[in-house]
Amino acid sequence: MKPVKLGLIGFGTVGSAIEDLINRNGDLLASRIGAGLEIVKVAVRDTTKKRETKLDTALFTDDPFDVVNDPAVQIVVEAMGGESLALELTLQAAKNGKHIVTANKHLLAMRGAEVFAAVGENGVELGFEAAVAGAIPIVRTLRSSFSANRIISLYGIVNGTANYILSKMADEGAPYETALSEAQRLGYAEADPTFDVEGIDSAHKAAILASLAFGTPVDFSDVYVEGVTRITAEDIGMAKEFGYVIKLLAIAKYEREMVEIRVHPAMVACSNPIAKVSGAFNAIEIDCSEGGVNMLVGPGAGGGPTASAMLGDIADIATKILAGSAGKTPSSMSQDPIAVRPMVEIKSRHYLRFTVPDSPGVLAQLAGLLGDNGISIASMMQRGRKADMPVSVVLMTHTALTANLDKALDEIGRLGICSAPTVVIRVEGEEE
Amino acid sequence: MKPVKLGLIGFGTVGSAIEDLINRNGDLLASRIGAGLEIVKVAVRDTTKKRETKLDTALFTDDPFDVVNDPAVQIVVEAMGGESLALELTLQAAKNGKHIVTANKHLLAMRGAEVFAAVGENGVELGFEAAVAGAIPIVRTLRSSFSANRIISLYGIVNGTANYILSKMADEGAPYETALSEAQRLGYAEADPTFDVEGIDSAHKAAILASLAFGTPVDFSDVYVEGVTRITAEDIGMAKEFGYVIKLLAIAKYEREMVEIRVHPAMVACSNPIAKVSGAFNAIEIDCSEGGVNMLVGPGAGGGPTASAMLGDIADIATKILAGSAGKTPSSMSQDPIAVRPMVEIKSRHYLRFTVPDSPGVLAQLAGLLGDNGISIASMMQRGRKADMPVSVVLMTHTALTANLDKALDEIGRLGICSAPTVVIRVEGEEE
Repeated sequence: MKPVKLGLIGFGTVGSAIEDLINRNGDLLASRIGAGLEIVKVAVRDTTKKRETKLDTALFTDDPFDVVNDPAVQIVVEAMGGESLALELTLQAAKNGKHIVTANKHLLAMRGAEVFAAVGENGVELGFEAAVAGAIPIVRTLRSSFSANRIISLYGIVNGTANYILSKMADEGAPYETALSEAQRLGYAEADPTFDVEGIDSAHKAAILASLAFGTPVDFSDVYVEGVTRITAEDIGMAKEFGYVIKLLAIAKYEREMVEIRVHPAMVACSNPIAKVSGAFNAIEIDCSEGGVNMLVGPGAGGGPTASAMLGDIADIATKILAGSAGKTPSSMSQDPIAVRPMVEIKSRHYLRFTVPDSPGVLAQLAGLLGDNGISIASMMQRGRKADMPVSVVLMTHTALTANLDKALDEIGRLGICSAPTVVIRVEGEEE
Repeated sequence: MKPVKLGLIGFGTVGSAIEDLINRNGDLLASRIGAGLEIVKVAVRDTTKKRETKLDTALFTDDPFDVVNDPAVQIVVEAMGGESLALELTLQAAKNGKHIVTANKHLLAMRGAEVFAAVGENGVELGFEAAVAGAIPIVRTLRSSFSANRIISLYGIVNGTANYILSKMADEGAPYETALSEAQRLGYAEADPTFDVEGIDSAHKAAILASLAFGTPVDFSDVYVEGVTRITAEDIGMAKEFGYVIKLLAIAKYEREMVEIRVHPAMVACSNPIAKVSGAFNAIEIDCSEGGVNMLVGPGAGGGPTASAMLGDIADIATKILAGSAGKTPSSMSQDPIAVRPMVEIKSRHYLRFTVPDSPGVLAQLAGLLGDNGISIASMMQRGRKADMPVSVVLMTHTALTANLDKALDEIGRLGICSAPTVVIRVEGEEE
């Protein structure tokens, strides 16, 4: 059987891991697919750069359009990233009848509708297991394993950098800056960590997961995003005393005919399995109508896991090419859009930390304004008593509407007694 | 598009859950598949029994061969269980060109080679996600997501009954009998719990997982099986003091060109994620060459999860039928057999509990005979000191060869100082 021909766009950590994996496990893949895999074209930024590769240098080009326009290429493997150029290349590949395997969560989150439409119109396959949580088989699970289920909710720890930082802060009481530096030193965080620590990368994945779970196109601007940069060791310590850990969660929920798609730090009960996922690991907890609550855990990033996920997709598509069925799979991504619930309409319990003077009557003022707005208090803790210094007053609320909480916090702000911004962290996974 | 036609064998918990799920989520399935699903024949033991069903009673038959021989049936859904008759029906279905979806782990573990051969020869599809760990997508993950990986090891908690019993014993210090009765009262254990508590059900799943992970046919008689019936509250308590929990593990490992396939109670470090999987939950930890260590957790049994897994397979096969590619997928199950490592050649750390007289020199005798056989002791604990009563002496060994340990225990037995059988529990997931 003639090998299935691949064209690679990008030959950094992931692209070269794909070549290496084909070299090492090619026999395994061939026995599964029924034919070998052959890389016939590779686009890189600089063709003169020395590389560790067994590929003929004649296959390298500095024009990525050479890959998507090459008549020999059957599957385009996009390991380049970014948005505009990646979109142009993807649309051109689809137009040329080429199947596409990508790890580009940024592209799918921002321009998914265009990509899925092009894939559907041109009858090509799109594999994107690698776009969410490395080798963790979440895309295949939602697309295939759980296809008879209505998905109720997804809670994901989908950014290893943020989870490493929060775990380090929790385990060692380290301040945010120290934990971030350590993550950078270990290679878990990039020199510019903005996408990871501000929650943007998690939000890209939340958008993709929501599309998959609910079959709805997602407008990325509808995704609420809040990162971990304002989380302090104090809040993590307080959380522990209340029996919680703080995790950066990507949340997708379906409730009363609307979806919630949001990324923010959340208090998770220590007894919840997702609370135990620490370090650079990723995890996704899926609550579905028939299969119950399932959790998938694994390393969420890195060349090995990403190449593993991409080759899983490549093998699936290659199998379909040989069976003559590639592009004949109905897409579950083209359903009608479901409205996204605005944050003000979301209900949850909250952790609130006020920085206020340590004087009689202050708690009564806080509790009064919360009560006036229909928010009742489940528990209270005060810390840091020192003469003439502000103290931290921590309140855990019962379930409250965000709009009501916002109003109460606004009124409390106008009292002029808070000497630092009030910390608000949602409690997830429980209502009372 | 004409619906894809199903024939059900068995209409108990699982069979009726499949009908119910098609009734409730038929629209979801149809949008994914591109056509509806229709049940056109159902085999039951007694057609006169009253049933909750929306199906025409004329579709019911008491001869399961009516299902596999019905020209209208495209996919045979086996939800009956057992071995001989199930094999006969499966082979006949394959011969008739029908695709098969089954939850029958017993059949696949005992007669897998015949089933896979028939499926391959007749060019039909076989879906068996439901045969291992309910809705947890382990079969699809091994067959598809991780297809570019060499699997290093699988550790599974794949029997919810045994895990419930061990969790109950650990949490409440309950004796085995009490935990079993409670499991029976809650419906987690059957009236005759033999298959679950003796490890046989777990061993069926271990055999299937090993076949999938390593592409080798498995002779079930090569699987080492030991259940949980001899685990005592004392051993669970001792384990806790050493920092371990006892779990019934299904283990499949590839090492030095041989596989290990075994089911037995094992000491697992409390810090290991699989140690935290409690109650009736199932979990499978997969260590693979590229994707690293991944874990899948979920409810491992029940009508809902089983029907969910079977309908996931049915949808996949229906999609292939419509694309004209059903039966064209190469089977990864037909590779050369890999030798199974005999238990005596397995190395691990061990927990040993001796019941011996509380007198000077006894420990020296035990340690001496262990040492003579090359087994060194990592730690020791003695409990239950009472005048003239035997005591429990617990030793944790360093890594030792089972053959050496067997020899040492045999020699210790011949000393005549042990007043009860010595308890031996392997430590998994660590070597030192």
